[in-house]
Amino acid sequence: MNGAELMMQTFLANGVELVVGNPGTSEMQFIAALDSVPQIRAVLALFEGVATGAADGYGRMADKPAATLLHLGPGLGNGLANLHNARRAHTPIVNVVGEHATFHRKYDPPLYSDIESIARGASEWTRTIESVATLSGDVAAAVAASLEAPGKVTTLVLPADVAWSDATGETKKATVTKASRVSQAVVDEIAKILKSGEPAALLLNGRALREPALRVASRIGRRAGARVLCDTFPARLERGAGRPVVERLPYIPQMILSLIADVKHLILVSARAPVSFFAFPHGPSTAVPEGCQVHTLAAEGDDALAALERLADALGASGEPNLELVRIPPPPTGGAIEPDSLGAALGATLPENAIVVDESNTVGYLAPMGTAGCAPHDWLCLTGGSIGMGLPVATGAALACPDRRVIALDGDGSAMYTIQALWTQAREKLNITNVILANRSYAILNLEMMRMGLGQPGPVAKQMLDLTNPALDFVSMGKSMGVPSCRVTTADALVDELRRSYATEGPTLIEALIQL
Amino acid sequence: MNGAELMMQTFLANGVELVVGNPGTSEMQFIAALDSVPQIRAVLALFEGVATGAADGYGRMADKPAATLLHLGPGLGNGLANLHNARRAHTPIVNVVGEHATFHRKYDPPLYSDIESIARGASEWTRTIESVATLSGDVAAAVAASLEAPGKVTTLVLPADVAWSDATGETKKATVTKASRVSQAVVDEIAKILKSGEPAALLLNGRALREPALRVASRIGRRAGARVLCDTFPARLERGAGRPVVERLPYIPQMILSLIADVKHLILVSARAPVSFFAFPHGPSTAVPEGCQVHTLAAEGDDALAALERLADALGASGEPNLELVRIPPPPTGGAIEPDSLGAALGATLPENAIVVDESNTVGYLAPMGTAGCAPHDWLCLTGGSIGMGLPVATGAALACPDRRVIALDGDGSAMYTIQALWTQAREKLNITNVILANRSYAILNLEMMRMGLGQPGPVAKQMLDLTNPALDFVSMGKSMGVPSCRVTTADALVDELRRSYATEGPTLIEALIQL
Repeated sequence: MNGAELMMQTFLANGVELVVGNPGTSEMQFIAALDSVPQIRAVLALFEGVATGAADGYGRMADKPAATLLHLGPGLGNGLANLHNARRAHTPIVNVVGEHATFHRKYDPPLYSDIESIARGASEWTRTIESVATLSGDVAAAVAASLEAPGKVTTLVLPADVAWSDATGETKKATVTKASRVSQAVVDEIAKILKSGEPAALLLNGRALREPALRVASRIGRRAGARVLCDTFPARLERGAGRPVVERLPYIPQMILSLIADVKHLILVSARAPVSFFAFPHGPSTAVPEGCQVHTLAAEGDDALAALERLADALGASGEPNLELVRIPPPPTGGAIEPDSLGAALGATLPENAIVVDESNTVGYLAPMGTAGCAPHDWLCLTGGSIGMGLPVATGAALACPDRRVIALDGDGSAMYTIQALWTQAREKLNITNVILANRSYAILNLEMMRMGLGQPGPVAKQMLDLTNPALDFVSMGKSMGVPSCRVTTADALVDELRRSYATEGPTLIEALIQL
Repeated sequence: MNGAELMMQTFLANGVELVVGNPGTSEMQFIAALDSVPQIRAVLALFEGVATGAADGYGRMADKPAATLLHLGPGLGNGLANLHNARRAHTPIVNVVGEHATFHRKYDPPLYSDIESIARGASEWTRTIESVATLSGDVAAAVAASLEAPGKVTTLVLPADVAWSDATGETKKATVTKASRVSQAVVDEIAKILKSGEPAALLLNGRALREPALRVASRIGRRAGARVLCDTFPARLERGAGRPVVERLPYIPQMILSLIADVKHLILVSARAPVSFFAFPHGPSTAVPEGCQVHTLAAEGDDALAALERLADALGASGEPNLELVRIPPPPTGGAIEPDSLGAALGATLPENAIVVDESNTVGYLAPMGTAGCAPHDWLCLTGGSIGMGLPVATGAALACPDRRVIALDGDGSAMYTIQALWTQAREKLNITNVILANRSYAILNLEMMRMGLGQPGPVAKQMLDLTNPALDFVSMGKSMGVPSCRVTTADALVDELRRSYATEGPTLIEALIQL
């Protein structure tokens, strides 16, 4: 057994079941070792950002890490944007970055660079495996770190000679630290606030957005007359008919401030206090209203469900959660694809247990509303603001949940960063409906330019935000990578193609031309 | 005038004429400011690796920096792989990385990350512009650093509030340090070695591979009976009929060792001593033969041309350079596209003054031989080993040299990392012939696996190196981004399509199916 094979055995012993990556010469032992572990699925990506985004999607749905395989510093660089999103999503991931042999580094060969410095841009735990003697322990430590609440992006740098050295077969087990228990004093204090009668709201994120925690939070809200809010861009929100409704915070800080203007006590549950995504010359940085006090029931690494249950007990919140029936809008009967007809088309068709990966940015802002009353489903958002997550995260979610339909809602501009994901979807025959919302523009940036007070862009600026000339042809694009593809221009045709895709095994691409 | 506009004025005052990038909200002032400098061409890339690769290609041909525009840490991450190649090519580049406003950073908003740490992976000079007061000086310093011999990748981090703050109009000028003069003692010592009659070779790289330096080196070689070698992967080699012939080192270190086994003195001219690209269990790390002494005539930051001229004087090398006529192989008359017929097809058609961007890896290894006798042209290689440079570097070379035909030779696997370059080529109507050498495999890695002593890959490993299932359809791919595209399967058809592309304005894609 060599180091690479011991790495596989250690992954296996610690529950890692998926490797997704893009290899190079320094990873040949790793690639060869994949044949020794048929229990681990190996998936090839044509670009590293697809691999890391897929690991993010997988981790969000499986609640355990996939391993990525990346080729030295540049491969890690290519994967960094989606690792950034994964870090913000608290997704457990173990990156394996191949490196030159330890004895070869001093020659500064052409592919040598400072891998650990690059990793610090997105990885919260990084270790170079300097010897095969520590390898299994290092791998187990990475898995453990990735699973430490609330979840971490971790990176192992694997020098080629460590991978090819002879190893003993002894595999180490990960010792995972449990989520922290919130102190009784904190629970009592929050209970006191909620009993005071002053306007209060719970702001949920992370694991507090799964159904069990949502139900408790909703009971607390009913009992205490408090609102139940959800972060703007949750990593994974369990929603739909029969699940408690939460109010999701909007993107624009002035809108958040207006929405929660009356709240005097904002109680964080695995969430952070809302801030503006970007700064603007005349905009606020924080989105907490003046005079509103922020309290923390559960910090991001705390056991939020247990804390909510104890809070519910303290309040005597033993009733039912708020399960108001949300109306599904009638299916569109024709007309242009616009935010409301897109929401209606999704609402009319969304399959039970679907996973929606939402990178729809401007066009999709009514999609959550249109689908709120649909059968239970998961909604996965762009947590870190680095666009190019949609198709890869959908790929990973489908790898984690082969029996569920995944719908990727993606802007045309966003889709182009990591368009290579389509090939992996086709190869792995994943049940994904990719909806490309083609407004042929970085529409969000036209909005942002106005918010900056810069007025209408000049001709040069305009063409830097414009995706025409030439227009992207996503039907040819999908075809080029083996994904059956079609184009629709009306909302009823979109409904038909969505239904057709759900009834078809494997991936589909629907280019939805937006009239704006 | 705001900070962003002052940045543009400073770029203009220091000869920067191209901005290529992919913006986000934090760069809106930068984008708006582009309209104030019509002298600077602004080019949009759909993915940041296209922007940085284009800046590399531009800088290699223009010998001055383009500016890139990248969106925070993730945008820089996406651009890092091609910046790595640019660093190894010593290409002058000024990256501008937008950052959150200085006062907003403390809120750790979703897109915040450690930009400078990421930059250290590829940028040799990095500065965050903390105030509009220092902005123009910081920009001038970045331009100066980028041009400091032998050329550097530099990075300016531009917080949004610095960009929107009021600025005075005073622009600072870059003070560029000249290349260092080699001491007379060094020249004399090298002259003595070359006069000794012991077998010697000059190994050239960097600016020593431009025609003036090549001619002097060749004269020295003839006079002293020394060989004239060229690095394995030069950033830019001026070659073709009427230019001195150099022996290019092969990729595999054992082959280098065999090629220069007789050399007792290896004299570096803007070059480094040859090393193995990767380490192997039984392979050498260094590719310098035992008993061969390595000397440096000109280090990478030295003025190599002047040093060569002084060396020629010391040796009395006043004759003609070695201009042996290299035979152009006859054009292929049919048959499969293989390494030799590919070389012949290129040799039969290469236009004068062409720029060849070579990321052909395994299939293209005879392309240099096939074209050695063609009319003068430039040959640009993959300097840093991070694949995905071909189409972007071709894009940048065409932006620098609109009157020259650019030919990108790219493997199918390589092309897929940064395939979005095609769209920019179409939008900017660049005269590029993209030849996609489709062997439907990471063929280099099958070779490397054998070199590792791992034998034939198992079924899982095999599919991780394989690009079939589904096969990529590059004709649809090109069409999807507005590039006229065709597929050829025979060498004579390749000749026809190459000729047709050279006679047509704008970009073309030729998918050359390789029979292996």
